[in-house]
Amino acid sequence: MTKQRKITLSEAEIPTHWYNVAADMPTPPLPPLNPGTREPIGPEMLAPLFPMKLIEQEVSVERFIEIPERVREAYTLWRPTPLFRAHNLERALDTPARIYYKYEGGSPSGSHKPNTAIAQAYYNAEQGVTKITTETGAGQWGSALAFACQMFGLECEVYMVRISYDQKPYRKLMMNTWGAEVIPSPSERTQAGRKILAEAPDSPGSLGIAISEAVERAVADEGTRYSLGSVLNHVLLHQTIIGQEAIKQLEKAGEDLPAVVIAPFGGGSNFAGLAFPFLHRKLSEGAKIRAIACEPASCPKLTRGVFRYDFGDAVGMTPLLPMYTLGHTFVPAKIHAGGLRYHGAGALVSQLLRDGVIEAQAIDQLETFEAGVTFARAEGIIPAPEANHGVAAAIRQANEAKEAGEARVILFNLCGHGHFDMAAYQDYFDGKLQKHALSQSDIDAALAKLDTPKIPAAV
Amino acid sequence: MTKQRKITLSEAEIPTHWYNVAADMPTPPLPPLNPGTREPIGPEMLAPLFPMKLIEQEVSVERFIEIPERVREAYTLWRPTPLFRAHNLERALDTPARIYYKYEGGSPSGSHKPNTAIAQAYYNAEQGVTKITTETGAGQWGSALAFACQMFGLECEVYMVRISYDQKPYRKLMMNTWGAEVIPSPSERTQAGRKILAEAPDSPGSLGIAISEAVERAVADEGTRYSLGSVLNHVLLHQTIIGQEAIKQLEKAGEDLPAVVIAPFGGGSNFAGLAFPFLHRKLSEGAKIRAIACEPASCPKLTRGVFRYDFGDAVGMTPLLPMYTLGHTFVPAKIHAGGLRYHGAGALVSQLLRDGVIEAQAIDQLETFEAGVTFARAEGIIPAPEANHGVAAAIRQANEAKEAGEARVILFNLCGHGHFDMAAYQDYFDGKLQKHALSQSDIDAALAKLDTPKIPAAV
Repeated sequence: MTKQRKITLSEAEIPTHWYNVAADMPTPPLPPLNPGTREPIGPEMLAPLFPMKLIEQEVSVERFIEIPERVREAYTLWRPTPLFRAHNLERALDTPARIYYKYEGGSPSGSHKPNTAIAQAYYNAEQGVTKITTETGAGQWGSALAFACQMFGLECEVYMVRISYDQKPYRKLMMNTWGAEVIPSPSERTQAGRKILAEAPDSPGSLGIAISEAVERAVADEGTRYSLGSVLNHVLLHQTIIGQEAIKQLEKAGEDLPAVVIAPFGGGSNFAGLAFPFLHRKLSEGAKIRAIACEPASCPKLTRGVFRYDFGDAVGMTPLLPMYTLGHTFVPAKIHAGGLRYHGAGALVSQLLRDGVIEAQAIDQLETFEAGVTFARAEGIIPAPEANHGVAAAIRQANEAKEAGEARVILFNLCGHGHFDMAAYQDYFDGKLQKHALSQSDIDAALAKLDTPKIPAAV
Repeated sequence: MTKQRKITLSEAEIPTHWYNVAADMPTPPLPPLNPGTREPIGPEMLAPLFPMKLIEQEVSVERFIEIPERVREAYTLWRPTPLFRAHNLERALDTPARIYYKYEGGSPSGSHKPNTAIAQAYYNAEQGVTKITTETGAGQWGSALAFACQMFGLECEVYMVRISYDQKPYRKLMMNTWGAEVIPSPSERTQAGRKILAEAPDSPGSLGIAISEAVERAVADEGTRYSLGSVLNHVLLHQTIIGQEAIKQLEKAGEDLPAVVIAPFGGGSNFAGLAFPFLHRKLSEGAKIRAIACEPASCPKLTRGVFRYDFGDAVGMTPLLPMYTLGHTFVPAKIHAGGLRYHGAGALVSQLLRDGVIEAQAIDQLETFEAGVTFARAEGIIPAPEANHGVAAAIRQANEAKEAGEARVILFNLCGHGHFDMAAYQDYFDGKLQKHALSQSDIDAALAKLDTPKIPAAV
């Protein structure tokens, strides 16, 4: 075999530490604020929600944080993940670029999400927590956490947005198979849920409501904590195992560092997971690497939002976070990439964008599915709608390399498979996906509602 | 890490040859017969259906048959597949056994089926064939062939049983994504289909009808051939890549040959793929290895059928094959493991069972799903209903090892994931699966209809 396609690592090569980009950032991230006092919040405010080890990681500036042995052991159920050279896609695009993708879809729940779910379940179990609550929309995050809780003997209570609960029964069943309880939200189990149901008994629910329910349940019980699947610093930290493995694998493939690193962008964990370890080389050694975050054109916080303090949830219950945001009341169109329908970006990624360390591109849904089908026909794997954003951006880069006549190395994160998203492909084949135009007035309207603290231009 | 879980191979370690068990069998398999003359059929009868290279493989007694370079290259899209040590399952069962599973669910279509689909597509393309037709029930085989045809630039026309077409739209969409045309069967496109529709416009279809349609279309066009996903010798041959990899991986794990090798049984390709390379050691070197084929209790051709010539299809169009069979008119209960609902066993496996080289066990559907959930909670991967038969048999063996107090090595084939089968898990969780009792009179009735040639006891 002359052409190597799959670059694997042994279990012993699973990284021993997570990489913390906060140690290398030109500007440190701003602290979260107490929404009442608008003062920086301390760890004690977060203790009812998260175990102390995760709170420490949230504010740490240590460059490398050791991965506990039991977490690394659980990772071996699917890690190290393969890095693929996309020979067939290169041929299909007739590009001189060398395209690589890191494939995270081989995890039990089918995406990169278990990388942090396992770590969070471990630290909760270690602290004596017996149950974790969370919310889920389409179910990708809920299923990852259900799996992780099963691995560490924790109960798992998932508030699943009612409309998804009804429309996507298979993700719910996946969670049940791993022993989790899945409750359609809004529910009768919480004050927040009962209040909504009293006003609107047929409420389809929302991620904002589901967060409120999961948080209320965690705070109400001493042995219960809450878990989030993206946005927060400790979540992004855990995902850096992806990029660290990819660096080793590119070395094995005989490549220098890539010209460009690409990943889909929802709250930041997908992008951070692949890109941050490469940013370490960029920030500490001056390596020339472009890192491109790919967001949906219908939810363009990085390319058309503002950098400002905002709430993490739709209702306004969380601490205020420094983020690129469309405003927490912005309701994105119901694109199939449900995992990317989030109004804001995590603090670390936002600061890096502000400082010009990373770039962002907004991609229309139609272009992403065209890219996904091209990819599936060339490489065999059918990507999740979220992952198609990374594929589309990689194809753009490959076409640019062709125009420039340069054999650039392009790396992207194929963050999950589309086995639970075939209905989305049906809509694409049936011609139901239209190019989506988001008007500036829609964005302005959502931003106009914000009365949260602004961030001075000097920061 | 003290405990190794995943044993991987490099691409260079993909086997260079398929293993042909016919070279080592104590009794050679009987030839297929022309259903009209009842004489052994020659290659010329098969030429309208299959390319010559596959017909040669069908009758070959060469021990090792070289895998073409382009097939090995296509295999690298997902091969070598990992071998896992099931540490968590062992702990859950409290067994001294060392359990390993070969995981074939990481292929593009999610099962072991592409191992032969790729090879068949290659040989067809090499001969100048431009289109392949096939039938599919639940869609597992059709999606594997759709993927393979896409890889070699062939058109693919899949006749999908009407009731599955309506109930399982996602498998159909998977085939569309890889560019295949999927036609609900019975269809207006063939004489066979039109005849059925004239009599029963609302016919739900059957695998037998779909085979008739696919064969009719292949025979009618010079540039079109037909493809089958199991039963035939060349299909089983291509799957032997599984067991060959597993042997290398067990060596890497520091194990001797396993005490027992286990795989689900439908038509034989799953079982043959894992077990035949181990039978080579058993037949040529006298290694003590048990090989157990696991069939559903509701379709027990190996444990309760007869060894006799029978048709491969329900209608009676194919050559007569020497097989353990329940009779080609036997209609198995609609268990969720659709891939195992087949009345007969391939010629090679049937002769090996007759000669006592292999064993068979019938397992009830309820036991298989209990096993599948135990497995998913321990190891993370949610198995396909077919794969659950292998899991259940492995658990039986692990419990036996515990009773005996012996650290036996158990290997089974985890042939596919259950991402498209979550509705089956729902039925299990909802208590809708009952222990299934198949009466002897049902079997006797189907066998009584057989007027095909018997096989003398001396053979």
